[in-house]
Amino acid sequence: MLRILIKDTKQKVGAKVLIMGRVINARLLSNVSFLQVQDYTGTIQTVWEKEIDAKMGDVVVVEGQVKKDDRAKGGCEILGENIKVLGTSVEELPFDLAKKDLNLQLPTLLDQRALSLRHPKIQAIFKLYDLLLKHYGQAMRANGFTEIKTPKILGACSEGGANFFKIKYFDQSAFLAQSPQLYKQIMVGVFERVFEIGSTFRAEPHFTTRHVNEYISLDAEMGFINGFEDVATMLNKVLVEIFEGLKEEGAPFLAMYGEASEPLVPEKIPMMKLAEMKKIIKEKYDYDVPDTTDIDPEGERWAGKYAKEELNSDFIFLTHYPWSGRPFYTMPCADNSDETCGFDLIYRGVELATGGQRIHEYDKLIANMKKKGIKPDGMEYYLEVFKFAMPPHGGWGMGSERLIQQLLGLGSVKEAILFPRDVKRLCP
Amino acid sequence: MLRILIKDTKQKVGAKVLIMGRVINARLLSNVSFLQVQDYTGTIQTVWEKEIDAKMGDVVVVEGQVKKDDRAKGGCEILGENIKVLGTSVEELPFDLAKKDLNLQLPTLLDQRALSLRHPKIQAIFKLYDLLLKHYGQAMRANGFTEIKTPKILGACSEGGANFFKIKYFDQSAFLAQSPQLYKQIMVGVFERVFEIGSTFRAEPHFTTRHVNEYISLDAEMGFINGFEDVATMLNKVLVEIFEGLKEEGAPFLAMYGEASEPLVPEKIPMMKLAEMKKIIKEKYDYDVPDTTDIDPEGERWAGKYAKEELNSDFIFLTHYPWSGRPFYTMPCADNSDETCGFDLIYRGVELATGGQRIHEYDKLIANMKKKGIKPDGMEYYLEVFKFAMPPHGGWGMGSERLIQQLLGLGSVKEAILFPRDVKRLCP
Repeated sequence: MLRILIKDTKQKVGAKVLIMGRVINARLLSNVSFLQVQDYTGTIQTVWEKEIDAKMGDVVVVEGQVKKDDRAKGGCEILGENIKVLGTSVEELPFDLAKKDLNLQLPTLLDQRALSLRHPKIQAIFKLYDLLLKHYGQAMRANGFTEIKTPKILGACSEGGANFFKIKYFDQSAFLAQSPQLYKQIMVGVFERVFEIGSTFRAEPHFTTRHVNEYISLDAEMGFINGFEDVATMLNKVLVEIFEGLKEEGAPFLAMYGEASEPLVPEKIPMMKLAEMKKIIKEKYDYDVPDTTDIDPEGERWAGKYAKEELNSDFIFLTHYPWSGRPFYTMPCADNSDETCGFDLIYRGVELATGGQRIHEYDKLIANMKKKGIKPDGMEYYLEVFKFAMPPHGGWGMGSERLIQQLLGLGSVKEAILFPRDVKRLCP
Repeated sequence: MLRILIKDTKQKVGAKVLIMGRVINARLLSNVSFLQVQDYTGTIQTVWEKEIDAKMGDVVVVEGQVKKDDRAKGGCEILGENIKVLGTSVEELPFDLAKKDLNLQLPTLLDQRALSLRHPKIQAIFKLYDLLLKHYGQAMRANGFTEIKTPKILGACSEGGANFFKIKYFDQSAFLAQSPQLYKQIMVGVFERVFEIGSTFRAEPHFTTRHVNEYISLDAEMGFINGFEDVATMLNKVLVEIFEGLKEEGAPFLAMYGEASEPLVPEKIPMMKLAEMKKIIKEKYDYDVPDTTDIDPEGERWAGKYAKEELNSDFIFLTHYPWSGRPFYTMPCADNSDETCGFDLIYRGVELATGGQRIHEYDKLIANMKKKGIKPDGMEYYLEVFKFAMPPHGGWGMGSERLIQQLLGLGSVKEAILFPRDVKRLCP
């Protein structure tokens, strides 16, 4: 008999079918047994009125008759007739995958990643992640962006920053890309609007719930903008489209994480100057944001709280970041060169994306680098482009895993990464 | 006046419009001038009956009246009224981007990559590449695969192969991933069907037209197969869907490369044992394929010629690769353990993809590793999974850039990569 997919069983009520999948729940009683079977299209209950030799976690082939059952999730169940075990556990599972919540400590969850990923609530995280990738691509293409892939191994060509991983590259030294920044800017000169979904590497020795050393960045860069506001507006639009997709197709996965996980993004995300936000946080919450060029994590949490309570938004753009804290390619403000056309996007109290307008004129770019004390060595390939007519442009980089972390309220970003890498963790 | 996109001008015949874009061709005559302007949606001719201060390569804002013109590509042109140059070249372009073909030597083409990419015929390569990424994702999702992202930094956990790039990872050593093989197999235990579009790194000291040291691999892995043929059939199906997408949406870009670039893939790609193919090549073309476990590039060319001329196919699957040449996870043939359930897919005489069925039982996997003299050290995280019920499974890895190279008949795979990396090239 040919396999049918579990999603198609409801059209086969009364018929004999053959399904394949994994037993994700098993209740073996004396007179009757129930095996919940999962394939890549769904799950179904199989009922056995005879003794069977199968258990939780097994990979099975089941033959039986489809029976209507209004109490069942999909509206039907299978009266099992034959079962063949294709694969079974030769050791006891280290935890009970049938429990509603695994409730594992993070190190155990990650050490046992290959098995903890089989839990339905953890599968749900990565089903939503899949939808995020899908809808980011769809939204970007719908808005005229061309997908690009830029190299992750860089030569001397750096962004002039620290925290690079160093590679031995034949008889040379090389570095892993911290972002596709310089390449995506070059590509604005080619396709005007480009996006990339790519691996990003940061050798930051952080131990926090929101940092990892390798992640997937959702990048974009666009030409012919009037200012950073055009970039923020596009990012807003793309988030609306992504969240609509998540709501529509991700409903069963979101439901496992409760009401708080509703994907909410306003048509117009509120926007505020960083300096003003800091003032409000001091006045309203009596918290002194440390006097740096950025905002600290606690400040971000207050900003998120303010956005939610006062502006009814899960998101807020903080703008006009100080010149001294932003990279050399960031456009300084026309009316105040101490500030830039750079912004951050805060989602539920955590920085989700960084963006802004870039400098598009060669002389200004060189002057800004000099002012920052950055040498052009190794970046000539990038700087040269600005001698050949670049339009005003800007873009963003967005942490894909942080979006899912914040959407679901996960304790650590590592829970939103299949096999995360941190300072100590290189395995699995 | 608000900008309108060039693709929308044909609906504005008679109206005054404002467009923005780059001048990709300029003919400046004494009494009339023509500027071809390109934005991210198309190109249009602007006609000037007065003197203008703009030139080839400039980034401009044009105001003018849309006029019907049946000789023009889009059916209309713009009678220019005002032009504003937003960006101009401060140096002479190193080559003429208005020529129909750039005809640059590969080193120049790549050294000047930021500018050579602006040529329409080179843009076309990466418009098709964008479509490949889009349709690979669409086809995989349509067939029930979940998109995953696996780490590119590996710990001691290797595949037991050579040619890894080594990284300094804080106080440890690490390696760059040669493929997502072990991770995607683990993920079959989670989602049954998974795919990945990801960076891949090979420290191979090759100098050929088909090797680079960093590329984008299109990977897939699927469970509950009856044999490697199921994997080959799925890959065939996905290629049909991709090529339909390329034909439909990529027509103007394909046209620049002539008839030979037609995306042709049969509904059923022919399949032949590697040993049989070698015999045919000897008999028919009098070429001795070197007696290794693989087929050499010249042998692949003959196999491609045979497939085209005798089987009317641009593609051919070569199957039953010898056990000694395939990685430890490859399923040996049931009836002949010297051969494996591993295959290669040849496209127009070049290896495009490698795939096969994997071993899914713990004891068999360990035994196969022992037989190959491979130590499990560092791979425990992967091997452990096979103690917990894995379905029969298999998959493939496909070179995205090689597909475009072969489709368009490009001399080197580097022409199908925005910023390629080879033994000597780390920049741009």
